[in-house]
Amino acid sequence: MDFKSYIEEKGKKAKEGARRLASTSTRVKDSALLAMADALERESPALIEENQKDLETAKEKSLSSSLIDRLTLNENRIKEMAKGLRDIVALPDPVGEITRMRQRPNGMQVGRKRVPIGVIGIIYESRPNVTADSAALCIKSGNGVFLRGGSEAINSNKAIAEILIEAGLKAGLPDGAITMVDVVDRQAVMEMLKLDKYIDLIIPRGGEELIKTVSANSTIPVIKHDRGLCHTYVDEDADIKMAEDICFNAKVQRPGTCNAMETMLVHKGVASAFLPGMIKRLQQAGVEIRGCQKVLAIDSSVKSATEEDWNTEHLDLILNVKIVDDMEEALRHIERFSSQHSEAIVTNNHQRAMRFLKEVDAAAVFVNASTRLHDGGEFGLGAEIGISTTRIHARGPMGLEELTSAKFIILGDGQVRE
Amino acid sequence: MDFKSYIEEKGKKAKEGARRLASTSTRVKDSALLAMADALERESPALIEENQKDLETAKEKSLSSSLIDRLTLNENRIKEMAKGLRDIVALPDPVGEITRMRQRPNGMQVGRKRVPIGVIGIIYESRPNVTADSAALCIKSGNGVFLRGGSEAINSNKAIAEILIEAGLKAGLPDGAITMVDVVDRQAVMEMLKLDKYIDLIIPRGGEELIKTVSANSTIPVIKHDRGLCHTYVDEDADIKMAEDICFNAKVQRPGTCNAMETMLVHKGVASAFLPGMIKRLQQAGVEIRGCQKVLAIDSSVKSATEEDWNTEHLDLILNVKIVDDMEEALRHIERFSSQHSEAIVTNNHQRAMRFLKEVDAAAVFVNASTRLHDGGEFGLGAEIGISTTRIHARGPMGLEELTSAKFIILGDGQVRE
Repeated sequence: MDFKSYIEEKGKKAKEGARRLASTSTRVKDSALLAMADALERESPALIEENQKDLETAKEKSLSSSLIDRLTLNENRIKEMAKGLRDIVALPDPVGEITRMRQRPNGMQVGRKRVPIGVIGIIYESRPNVTADSAALCIKSGNGVFLRGGSEAINSNKAIAEILIEAGLKAGLPDGAITMVDVVDRQAVMEMLKLDKYIDLIIPRGGEELIKTVSANSTIPVIKHDRGLCHTYVDEDADIKMAEDICFNAKVQRPGTCNAMETMLVHKGVASAFLPGMIKRLQQAGVEIRGCQKVLAIDSSVKSATEEDWNTEHLDLILNVKIVDDMEEALRHIERFSSQHSEAIVTNNHQRAMRFLKEVDAAAVFVNASTRLHDGGEFGLGAEIGISTTRIHARGPMGLEELTSAKFIILGDGQVRE
Repeated sequence: MDFKSYIEEKGKKAKEGARRLASTSTRVKDSALLAMADALERESPALIEENQKDLETAKEKSLSSSLIDRLTLNENRIKEMAKGLRDIVALPDPVGEITRMRQRPNGMQVGRKRVPIGVIGIIYESRPNVTADSAALCIKSGNGVFLRGGSEAINSNKAIAEILIEAGLKAGLPDGAITMVDVVDRQAVMEMLKLDKYIDLIIPRGGEELIKTVSANSTIPVIKHDRGLCHTYVDEDADIKMAEDICFNAKVQRPGTCNAMETMLVHKGVASAFLPGMIKRLQQAGVEIRGCQKVLAIDSSVKSATEEDWNTEHLDLILNVKIVDDMEEALRHIERFSSQHSEAIVTNNHQRAMRFLKEVDAAAVFVNASTRLHDGGEFGLGAEIGISTTRIHARGPMGLEELTSAKFIILGDGQVRE
C-alpha cells in the first residue's frame, strides 16, 4: 500500500473540509453533534459487535485486564459517549469572538478574532471513546479532525467514526470535517506526522513512548499531553485536618491519573503531628508508603524510598514521602523531580502560599486544594481534549477555547504605512 | 569538537538562568536593558571593528551588496540598536498578570497567571541587530534566550552578545539568561534543535530554506516566521482614490518586506476606472506590472503574468495584477495562492467587508488599509520578535505578551475531587 498518497489524499480532503467548517454556523455544528449522539445510541448493537472483534484480538494477545477494560464498549459506555457529545453542544461556540478591538493613533481599529486552528491530528491509544470526544470538541471549535487511534481498537474506532461521519454529513457538516486513518500500519502515522501542508496541530494522547515518537518525528506543531509527577507540600503552617483530606484525595481518589499525587513533602515542624495519622489512613486505603530516612524514624513500618522512586510516576497506590527542613528544600525537590503538571501546597501562611504560586513552574499550581482537581470541568472550561504539558499555546486543560487561535482584524479608512 | 556536549552544557546553563530570570523583578530586568544599551554605545568602536571582519569575509565571498548592507554596523545603527533596547524598557512587563480569576461552585478560585515560556531559541540570519532585539525581548518577558546567528555575522554577533551578557550580569541578571552559540558549524544547530530538555521554543528568523530545515529537524516546538505572499482586493464598491493610495503603499513603500503586496486583484466593474491611473502611478515608481489577459487588454504595455508569478513572493518592485469577475473569484484566488500572512480588501460595501474578514484565512486581515501596517508597533503591541505564520500560540506580530504562556493558579480552602 502506498501510505504516502493514502494519507496525503485524506489530508487534502480534511483541509478542504476544515476550511468550510470554519465558517459553518454554530447551529449546524450543534445539530450535527446532537445527531451524532443519537446515532451512537441507535447503532449501539452494531458498535458492540465491532468492539467484540477488538476484545477477541486483545484476549488472543493476552493484553492486561485493565487494558481490556479500557477497550470495552457496552450499552452504558455508549450512552456516556453520547452524553459527552450533548454536553459539548451546551458549551458556547468559541469561534468568532472579537477581543481587544482598539483604536490606533492613525484611526484604524485593530483587534483579534477567534478562529479555528485548522485540521487537528489526534493520535491516541486504547479507549475508543476518545474517537467521539476528540471529534466532537474539534467540530464544535470549527476544526477539522484527523483521527488515528491505536491498532488494538481499530474496529471500534472505525465503527464510531463511520457513525459520526454519516450523521454529521446528513446534518450539514462539510465532507472531510472528520477523517479517520483506518490502516493500522505504523508507516501511516509517520506519513501523517509529515503532512504539515494539511495538518496544523498534532495532539498525542497516550503513553510516554507514543508521545516521544510523535515529538521526534513530527514536522507539525505538537501539543503534548505528557506524564504527571505531582507533589503536595504540607507546610509548617498547614491545617493538619485539611492537609490530610487533600493528600488522601490526591493519592487515593483515582491513583491511575496524571494529576494524582506521587510524592508528599512534609515540613519537619508538622511531621510528628501530621504523619502518623496520615500514614495510617493511607495504609488503610491500601497505599504503600515509601519514605525518606526521617520518615522511617517516625514510622518503621514504612519502606525506604529509592532515588528512582522520587523520579517515578507510580500511577498506583504507592506514595513517596519526604520530610523537608524548610520550604526551600521542598521547592528544590519539586524543581528537580516535578513533571510540571500539577503541584500543591497546603498552608495557612499567606507569604508562603504566594511564593509557591510564583515560583513553582507547573501547568497548574494549587494552594490548599487537591491536585486531582486539575481538570477542564473542575476549572470551568467544560469538556477538555486533555491536559497540555507543552509550554506554548495552552498549558493545562485544553477546552474549546484552547482549540482555537486568533487572527488580527483591522478596520481602516484608507490608512497606509508612513 | 563534541557539539552535542557543547550545546547540552550551554542548554543546561540557559535553563538554570531562565528559571532564575522568571522570578527576577521588572526593576532589575529594566536596569539591565538600560545598561546593555549604554554598553553597546560605549563599545561601538570595538563592535565596528568586529563587524569589519565579517564584512571582509562577505566581500571575499562576493555576497550581494544588499546582504552586505544588512550586515553592516555603523555608529548610527548601533545607536538604533541601543534605542531599540530602551524602547523595550518603556513597555509594560507582561509577567505576573493574573486574568480570569473566577470562583467555582465548590468555592475554589481558578485563574491564569502569565509566566515566561522558559528558554527561547532564536535561529537567525544576516542582520546582527537581531541579536540585541531578540535578547532584549526575551529578557523583558522573563525568558532565557539561546541565540544562534548566521555564520556570515558571527564576529558581530559574538561581540554584541558579549557586551549584552557582561552588562546584564553586572546589572543583576542571572548567569545563563543570555546564551550565544559561538561555533558556526551546522552540526551545532542540529544539536540545538534536539535539545527539548532545555529549550522550550524555537523561533527561526530568516529565509525559506532556514525555516524548512528548522521545522523538519526540531523536536522543540517551532513558531515560524514564514514568507508573505499578500493580496489586496479592490472591490467593485471601492473608493478609487483610497484604493490607489493603499495599493501604492502596499507595493512601493518597502517592497522587500513580508507584508508588502505581491498581487492586486481588481473587480471588473472598477477595472477601467481604476487600473489605467494606478498602473501609470506604479510604473512611474519603477514597478513592473505582470497582468492577466484582461489587464493586457486595458494596458498593452503590461507584461503577461505566468502561473508562477501568482505563486511568487517577488519581494521587489514587481506586481501581479488580475481582474476578477466577482468577489468569489478573488476569494478563491487568495485561498489558492495566499501564504496566509496579510490580506486586504478595499471596499465601501459593509457586507463584503464583513465577509472578507470572516472568510479570509490569514494572520492579519485588513479592510481599507495597507498590508504594510501588519507590524507589532502599528498594532500597538510594541516591539516584536517577528510575525508568526504558525497557527498555534500566536499568529501575526509576536510582542512581549506572545513570548509568555499562562499557568493555572488555584486558591482553595480544602477542596478535593468528589
